[in-house]
Amino acid sequence: MVRPRSVAVVGASDDATRIGGRPIAYMMDQGFAGTILPVNPNRPKVQGLPAFASVSALPSVPDVAIVAVPGEAAVQAVADLGAKGCRAAIVFTAGFAEVDEAGAAMQDRLVAAARGHGMRILGPNCLGLFNAAVGFYPMFSTSFEQGWPIRGNIGIASQSGAYGTHVFAVSRARGLGTTVCVTTGNESDVSLGEVIGWMAQAPEVEVICAYAEGIRESDRFIAALDLARRNRKPVVMMKVGRSELGGHAAKSHTASIAGDDTITQAVLDEFGVVRAGTTEQMLDIAYAASRRIYPARNSLGVITVSGGAGVLISDAAEAAGIPMPPMPDDAQAKLKSLISFSAPRNPVDCTAQAVNQTEMFEHFLETTAEAGGYASMMVFLTQTGGSTTMAPKLRPYLKKAREKFSDRLWVLSVIASADKVKGYEEDGYLVFEDPTRAVAAIEAMGRFGAAFAAPPAEEIPVPEVTLPATTPTEAEGKRILAQAGVPAVPEKACASVAEAVAAADSFGYPVVGKILSPDILHKSEIGGVILDLANADAVREAHATLLARAAERAPGARIEGVLIAKQIKGAVEMALGVARDPVFGPVAMVGLGGVFIEILKDVSFRRCPFSEAEAEKMVRSLKGFPLLDGARGRPKADVKALAGALAALSRFAAGAGDRLLSVDVNPLLVLPEGQGAFAADAVIEVEETH
Amino acid sequence: MVRPRSVAVVGASDDATRIGGRPIAYMMDQGFAGTILPVNPNRPKVQGLPAFASVSALPSVPDVAIVAVPGEAAVQAVADLGAKGCRAAIVFTAGFAEVDEAGAAMQDRLVAAARGHGMRILGPNCLGLFNAAVGFYPMFSTSFEQGWPIRGNIGIASQSGAYGTHVFAVSRARGLGTTVCVTTGNESDVSLGEVIGWMAQAPEVEVICAYAEGIRESDRFIAALDLARRNRKPVVMMKVGRSELGGHAAKSHTASIAGDDTITQAVLDEFGVVRAGTTEQMLDIAYAASRRIYPARNSLGVITVSGGAGVLISDAAEAAGIPMPPMPDDAQAKLKSLISFSAPRNPVDCTAQAVNQTEMFEHFLETTAEAGGYASMMVFLTQTGGSTTMAPKLRPYLKKAREKFSDRLWVLSVIASADKVKGYEEDGYLVFEDPTRAVAAIEAMGRFGAAFAAPPAEEIPVPEVTLPATTPTEAEGKRILAQAGVPAVPEKACASVAEAVAAADSFGYPVVGKILSPDILHKSEIGGVILDLANADAVREAHATLLARAAERAPGARIEGVLIAKQIKGAVEMALGVARDPVFGPVAMVGLGGVFIEILKDVSFRRCPFSEAEAEKMVRSLKGFPLLDGARGRPKADVKALAGALAALSRFAAGAGDRLLSVDVNPLLVLPEGQGAFAADAVIEVEETH
Repeated sequence: MVRPRSVAVVGASDDATRIGGRPIAYMMDQGFAGTILPVNPNRPKVQGLPAFASVSALPSVPDVAIVAVPGEAAVQAVADLGAKGCRAAIVFTAGFAEVDEAGAAMQDRLVAAARGHGMRILGPNCLGLFNAAVGFYPMFSTSFEQGWPIRGNIGIASQSGAYGTHVFAVSRARGLGTTVCVTTGNESDVSLGEVIGWMAQAPEVEVICAYAEGIRESDRFIAALDLARRNRKPVVMMKVGRSELGGHAAKSHTASIAGDDTITQAVLDEFGVVRAGTTEQMLDIAYAASRRIYPARNSLGVITVSGGAGVLISDAAEAAGIPMPPMPDDAQAKLKSLISFSAPRNPVDCTAQAVNQTEMFEHFLETTAEAGGYASMMVFLTQTGGSTTMAPKLRPYLKKAREKFSDRLWVLSVIASADKVKGYEEDGYLVFEDPTRAVAAIEAMGRFGAAFAAPPAEEIPVPEVTLPATTPTEAEGKRILAQAGVPAVPEKACASVAEAVAAADSFGYPVVGKILSPDILHKSEIGGVILDLANADAVREAHATLLARAAERAPGARIEGVLIAKQIKGAVEMALGVARDPVFGPVAMVGLGGVFIEILKDVSFRRCPFSEAEAEKMVRSLKGFPLLDGARGRPKADVKALAGALAALSRFAAGAGDRLLSVDVNPLLVLPEGQGAFAADAVIEVEETH
Repeated sequence: MVRPRSVAVVGASDDATRIGGRPIAYMMDQGFAGTILPVNPNRPKVQGLPAFASVSALPSVPDVAIVAVPGEAAVQAVADLGAKGCRAAIVFTAGFAEVDEAGAAMQDRLVAAARGHGMRILGPNCLGLFNAAVGFYPMFSTSFEQGWPIRGNIGIASQSGAYGTHVFAVSRARGLGTTVCVTTGNESDVSLGEVIGWMAQAPEVEVICAYAEGIRESDRFIAALDLARRNRKPVVMMKVGRSELGGHAAKSHTASIAGDDTITQAVLDEFGVVRAGTTEQMLDIAYAASRRIYPARNSLGVITVSGGAGVLISDAAEAAGIPMPPMPDDAQAKLKSLISFSAPRNPVDCTAQAVNQTEMFEHFLETTAEAGGYASMMVFLTQTGGSTTMAPKLRPYLKKAREKFSDRLWVLSVIASADKVKGYEEDGYLVFEDPTRAVAAIEAMGRFGAAFAAPPAEEIPVPEVTLPATTPTEAEGKRILAQAGVPAVPEKACASVAEAVAAADSFGYPVVGKILSPDILHKSEIGGVILDLANADAVREAHATLLARAAERAPGARIEGVLIAKQIKGAVEMALGVARDPVFGPVAMVGLGGVFIEILKDVSFRRCPFSEAEAEKMVRSLKGFPLLDGARGRPKADVKALAGALAALSRFAAGAGDRLLSVDVNPLLVLPEGQGAFAADAVIEVEETH
């Protein structure tokens, strides 16, 4: 579909400005090397090419066909193409599932017609695609009137045709090379995920820019992101519809399911996909990625001619989370000795003097790179970098420093003419006018680097889970979860003192002892509850005391023994949960209880299953994490036990299958370090079997 | 200093590339109409102008002087200029307070020399200023090598010379008109606030772009922001040093006090100043402000040719807080009848069809503007707006719609050549390539509009406050605050049953009764505390019961009566406070107690004093506000009482003067609506008198 040797155009037009005419004109203009086979019942020739009256009249089986005929005729064309042996169609035709029920039914027939012949469909209601590497332009965009793609390594995958070509047009205006662009329209068959997956292995593409309104299927999407990461191809994604407003608009557009943005975000985070909020951000990141330097442990060294800009860049780096460690003391002293007014901590303010005495500039550049050891280097020169007198003097030093430290990501912030910018780019610099945008792009390169360097996801063993036929009681739910590795607050009915001591030993101290009798409803009234049993002796003594009190104060009550329960003190209340996302399946959630989850929505989500290490990362990502980490004079909480319970819950959910609708563990009581985490309440909701 | 008739240049150089040479060369090039008086002891002529050997040798008193001689010579020059009668100097010389203690001492001498003659100083260590309206260029920036300022209505006020001219250079590259730029350097005399204040009344300037590292003085700064608001001149401010990293760099630069960013932000919010995070944002906003349309009640109507972009714009509008109300049903039906595939809710997706049938486009534009009644209108056309075939057809309809609804802020998002953009701008459109940046700029115009429309700040009566000589006890502190209008939990020692009933009546029910005796330490042990007294009868009964129990269970104890206290139930715990900012004086704070303030720093600050209405705004701005507003099944809290206490605290702080170091009211217990808010604990810290 993307690199064919021949293409049929059903609904071919002689008019190069019509939908069925543009692709032919574009391919002829751009020297498509394959055969173009126009299908038009009314003309022997189309745009000078021999035309054929029908699909069946085609002289050969095309690798791919463009379908540009309206309504039912498109369904018929797909059926005819399938019968002819064609295996791929790009369907421009609109009026399908994006419009109404009748359209959705027609789309079903379109897909059925293709499936019957093992044929793949891009669209319907799509703008098409282009692959400039082979001059293939099955796309009816007017974009090309303003210029052809610049060759380069960016691929655009977009659900929206208009927005996909908008990104293309902006990238072209910025001089960025976009070789491939694929728009997926209604995604009746080929989905965005499959397109990303193709790009992840295609030599034409090194950087993937994706635009989504809603992810419709999980498997290919996940596989694509995984492959892109393994192949070290960064994916920048714009996923709109994150607001309620946006969500509404997304639903009225392209029959899309916007999905739960929080969950989509969790999936993107899982694979190191960087999410862009604007076209500009997306292309900044794509541009920066063109250097293919992705620092796994990012840090930023800044050389600036303006102290003010240094502060601004520091602010931006802090907000973005890029460390800017100070220069070593000796290196600072060395630079200070060169220019006494300089401020060489990092940002390294070399002052205008270093620019006027350019040999100073060389020292500042190289000393900062060498002694600072920063993974990313940013040089802020503002208009000096574009000055006709200064730029030619500075450029050789910049070039030399970059060559000497070629493993670093070098970024220049200058205001300069296009030709000067080009010169710096040829020397290996990324050039941004705005320093804040530069910082954002540097941060994204670090995130890619970290994702690429991460060990491959470990295989998480998924247990076999047999769910009850109906939603279980709370007690049964807790039992099921305890078996799965999410322990409930431990308690045991003990018939003997030996049993009581053994139970207490196994729970860890302190424990609580309670008289166990069906006839004593209010235990505390007869002194039937004893707290703070700190060791085995205390348990033995309490056992005797409880039995004695019962005999004295509730004579005649049937005594079954003593209940020993772990005493929960100083716990942090957490909430764990599992929900079933319609696209991504079971997802697990963790949050701090109370206001954090209810008012602040301070939660972390992830697809099930995942490891203890990932679970711990989720916990640490919470805004309220300080509460688990010793804030407000508390002891540190048992984060390992919490992460263990969360990971166990994720394995349980993955093993339980589609019948598991939801799990709520709220609260999960997390004790101080080393003392565990225990569910105090749990609800499991299952789909009833019939 | 900004529009002089004559300027002396002390340290004038014949070399047009030297610090003392550039201003002369620039002014000659740009036709400065006033007299330039070079001072140079070694040359009779400088750059062709007659030069004078010393300040005293000058033939007339210059309106202003540029000082470009090093170190002590600069101090001497200022003294000489003062003696000559000159009233203003722009001091380029560096090596003062920004360097070390000795430099600071020299700066003090510089200021003293000037003050003695009533002379004002810009700098030292400043890059100077320019006023292109009169060709006045006392600035040694190399910026002008790349082009002169474009005439327009933007003024730049910057503490940093390098960053100020960076902003100027970026604005020039974007085609924005910047007539005046003033850099303040070390601010030994003229501060950023005074510059903003000058711009707020100067006809040269309509939009003020300010850059600050730290605000050094409050009065002129506040007065300037107030004046700018009254004169409807928007101020966009970049204030760096908000991060810890940044704060550090700010201190090592220009001897600046970065101040507390939270408090600065509160001051900017107070005056409707929009804070920009990047140069790009600052200039986007300045550009948008050039239309001088500031919607006081902003709303956004969007017409788009791409559904995807519509979703993106909706997301951005929601994030920015601009409402996008849907179109009225009948207008939607009308548009839907024109193009059946259109989605005319808002965003109004008119589809490519409206662009192909341009008369449709006219209907969509005007119907959306008219029926939707949006204050701001955005049209997203992407490359279609730049298309050589399409743009000329669309432009007349765009122009007509804008003229018909000329009170609206009209924004176009297109990818187009510079000349096409210029055409749209001439038609009254703001043109942005990136729709998200357009949304941000539209949002800023609404914020300016709201600030300009706000009634002038009411005069807040400030009470006379007499502070104790030393930090008072908690009880005394609570008494002082109660007197000031921040009530403590009401309680009263009552010697008789009548007094008890009267106290309870005055507090409101329920109340708590407690036996009052210096001999009974643990009241509850003898049943000496009775809760939930719901009415006067219950108080009477409790009074008798308490006395009886005391007589029976603590015979011999001295009984002083009964303490009646308001019973606090279901309160939300808040924290109020006052701190003294070194620049802005007393500032009051409000936050929710517990994790909100300690972990999340969810607080709101404002300069003292302020009104109840402002106090309520602060409360409502808290992230945790839902907890006061009925979240989690609680009753709504008494926000009016909370706001009343906060406003009273602000008046108290304003009246207390410099000796009030801090106040902490923590917790302030806020009861359900209508039941009040009461301090349970309060600490007032005062500077001891000697």
